Amino acid sequence: MKTLSTLLAGVTALSLSTATLANDHDPMALQAKALQDDVAYDIVEGLTTEVGPRQAGTEAEARARNWAVAKLNALGFSNVRSEAYLMPTWIRGKETAAVVSPFPQALAITALGNSGSTGDKGLTAEVVYFPTLADLVAAPDGSLTGKIAFVSHEMKPTQDGSSYGAFGPARFVGPNIAAKKGAAAIIIRSAGTDHHRNPHTGNTNFEAGVTPIPAGALSIPDAENLARMFARGKAVKLKLVLTPQNIGQQQSGNVIAELPGSDPSLGMIVIACHLDSWDLGTGAIDDASGCAITAAAAKQIMAAGQPKRTIRLLWAGAEEVGIWGGKAYGEAHTGDNHALAMESDFGADRIWRVEFNFPDSATSVAKEIEQALQPLAIGRGTQKASGGADVQSIIANNNLAIIDLQQDGTRYFDLHHTPDDTLDKIDPEQLRQNVAAWSTVLAIVANSDADFTMPAKQ
Amino acid sequence: MKTLSTLLAGVTALSLSTATLANDHDPMALQAKALQDDVAYDIVEGLTTEVGPRQAGTEAEARARNWAVAKLNALGFSNVRSEAYLMPTWIRGKETAAVVSPFPQALAITALGNSGSTGDKGLTAEVVYFPTLADLVAAPDGSLTGKIAFVSHEMKPTQDGSSYGAFGPARFVGPNIAAKKGAAAIIIRSAGTDHHRNPHTGNTNFEAGVTPIPAGALSIPDAENLARMFARGKAVKLKLVLTPQNIGQQQSGNVIAELPGSDPSLGMIVIACHLDSWDLGTGAIDDASGCAITAAAAKQIMAAGQPKRTIRLLWAGAEEVGIWGGKAYGEAHTGDNHALAMESDFGADRIWRVEFNFPDSATSVAKEIEQALQPLAIGRGTQKASGGADVQSIIANNNLAIIDLQQDGTRYFDLHHTPDDTLDKIDPEQLRQNVAAWSTVLAIVANSDADFTMPAKQ
Repeated sequence: MKTLSTLLAGVTALSLSTATLANDHDPMALQAKALQDDVAYDIVEGLTTEVGPRQAGTEAEARARNWAVAKLNALGFSNVRSEAYLMPTWIRGKETAAVVSPFPQALAITALGNSGSTGDKGLTAEVVYFPTLADLVAAPDGSLTGKIAFVSHEMKPTQDGSSYGAFGPARFVGPNIAAKKGAAAIIIRSAGTDHHRNPHTGNTNFEAGVTPIPAGALSIPDAENLARMFARGKAVKLKLVLTPQNIGQQQSGNVIAELPGSDPSLGMIVIACHLDSWDLGTGAIDDASGCAITAAAAKQIMAAGQPKRTIRLLWAGAEEVGIWGGKAYGEAHTGDNHALAMESDFGADRIWRVEFNFPDSATSVAKEIEQALQPLAIGRGTQKASGGADVQSIIANNNLAIIDLQQDGTRYFDLHHTPDDTLDKIDPEQLRQNVAAWSTVLAIVANSDADFTMPAKQ
Repeated sequence: MKTLSTLLAGVTALSLSTATLANDHDPMALQAKALQDDVAYDIVEGLTTEVGPRQAGTEAEARARNWAVAKLNALGFSNVRSEAYLMPTWIRGKETAAVVSPFPQALAITALGNSGSTGDKGLTAEVVYFPTLADLVAAPDGSLTGKIAFVSHEMKPTQDGSSYGAFGPARFVGPNIAAKKGAAAIIIRSAGTDHHRNPHTGNTNFEAGVTPIPAGALSIPDAENLARMFARGKAVKLKLVLTPQNIGQQQSGNVIAELPGSDPSLGMIVIACHLDSWDLGTGAIDDASGCAITAAAAKQIMAAGQPKRTIRLLWAGAEEVGIWGGKAYGEAHTGDNHALAMESDFGADRIWRVEFNFPDSATSVAKEIEQALQPLAIGRGTQKASGGADVQSIIANNNLAIIDLQQDGTRYFDLHHTPDDTLDKIDPEQLRQNVAAWSTVLAIVANSDADFTMPAKQ
């Protein structure tokens, strides 16, 4: 165990290493200040209250862009603008499910993005139970004709969110598989870890040539109830009403703002989040908090003077429904001089781990960041950083260096894509720890002359 | 702190005091056995899975009675029967609410029992915010004409549930008060303590001569969101659609079962719960668990031999909507020889306190119970027992002695009357502690010759 004096000696040594800055960007001083931040909470509070749900392609997302432009201007950022693009838009309709027999009762359900429609009259059919996605995959072709597939899973909370990768495919690909096997519809146990009657929506995708079937997610208590009915060995018949629609190409957009750097020859740092949310909740943790954290950290930098590198804020549109904003940004801005990409899109709980994808020429910067984050209880991980969804396109196009500040995901999938994603789930102290970590990292990288150019891909 | 040997000495002394029983009803032996009980969980699991929601006066409640009669017969109880009565029945319709201005978004709402209807087209009106019920009471008559009253409160969890008494009146009487002041409708912050988008329903009552207005409860996150809109000082307009209906007199019923005692001259012990539930959840904690606990405890007694006194199980109908089952029981059974009444209707979490309303002639029985419950971490309270809702009528009619085994209510109002009242909320270990406490008490009182006759009321 380190003694306090050893710890303080380390902090002092670190401060000295950045003492030559023209601005007041001492990383540890900014870190301490950011732990008192109120800007991030104010942004989440404002966006969830004054806009609320903001589904991509809808007028609610347009209101969110107007709100974002006004807020980023008010915070003092430069070059604040909205960049529009078109994208195919799917909207929710009625959604009900009820066991017809043997134990009649309503089940809490929501349609998955891109679900087909049952029509207003609904669909009544026998349900076939698959405890896992592998069981569905193993079902013979044609064995589901006219039936409703029910796919369950055993997703449990994980700090790094990896259980979403392991069990989320029931949603991501289950509907396409069921459709190809002739199912009339599919219902899944929500890809979530809570026990509330709030189903988790989210996109599913059908291959070209596969007609979308009605696809819904049951809340976890309902999925467990349905599984118990099967455990009694009786045939289960369900009535399903899902009437979503595709309403064609609609306008969406990215909101961009900048804190201009003093040396335009140095590549900029792009820090991303997404402004759209699913329609069921008010998108507090997904992803108002990401926009709040990144903007609040950039504001801390701004308040302490001009950094060397430009920091660009990307509040991407239409992430949830296909990362349309991220792709549009990548296409429009490949020619811009980027050095580094980062994103915050995993809630508002504390950052526990930092990872890098850096060239050898920036190894000492990674070391400095690693050391500077230790007072925030953030350790360095062993994997390569991969970046968030909205920066994938620009990273791929421009072969960018990446830093991942990884948030604790233990309770993220209790709330993810549900009506329960609301302001009250934000812990202001953990939110501030995020702002402090981001401020620390931005203070270092935005004032660094290091060469972040990645080696050319093999 | 007692040593283990002192504790064991106490247990031995207590066992000796009941050693003259003809049956095997040693309270401490039964307590130990009941801590292994699986009957209670089986009942809650069965009722929530095979019937689910069972609103009073509907065919779902009738299915629940059939289920209950079959289950109580299967468990070996005697004289199992259903006793029908008629009651006025209200059923839910559509229910939506949306802020029209200044910040358009949907709010999660549910109608309160006995709410009036807005009609299919709904009602759009300005909202007047009352932070507490007292603020509504203080509003001048006529000041609400054409407007929607919004009543909030600060209900927090309490172990004894007393915050429901303190803050529940926003629901119990708020709508009647708003109607008398001319409001077009009322919405309240749910009488609950959770932070999920699941509003809490429950009955409200309008005085004779007051026309019911549409009355709904917002989920707590939605009520907080709406309050934040008011904090911005802007007029708030809401569109409300609530289309419940009164469908007149419908059949409901009580299910009754008995474990006959060996000495019919001794008054019986009636142990109650309610079989109906609100329609939104599956009524696991309210009150499948009460029926499960009381029946499982009576089954423990049955398995150990015939008690002296008859134990009668009352699974009352239509508690939620006006205690119609309890009243029907009181009217039909005033002539029966009752000694004592008890009820379980406060969830499935552990019992922490026991209270009595006993005559002096039964003081030693209370002492024996107090001592026997200590190994279960149950202490004696200082108030007089008052009994549950379903035994109020028979207690009043027959001036009965009462024992209250009080459950921990800390999380009860997270779930009460919401869609979230489902099986997964039951903690099997705490459920068993309930069965153990009830088994202990029944072993003592059902074999006691004590005179439970209460002094005549003043």
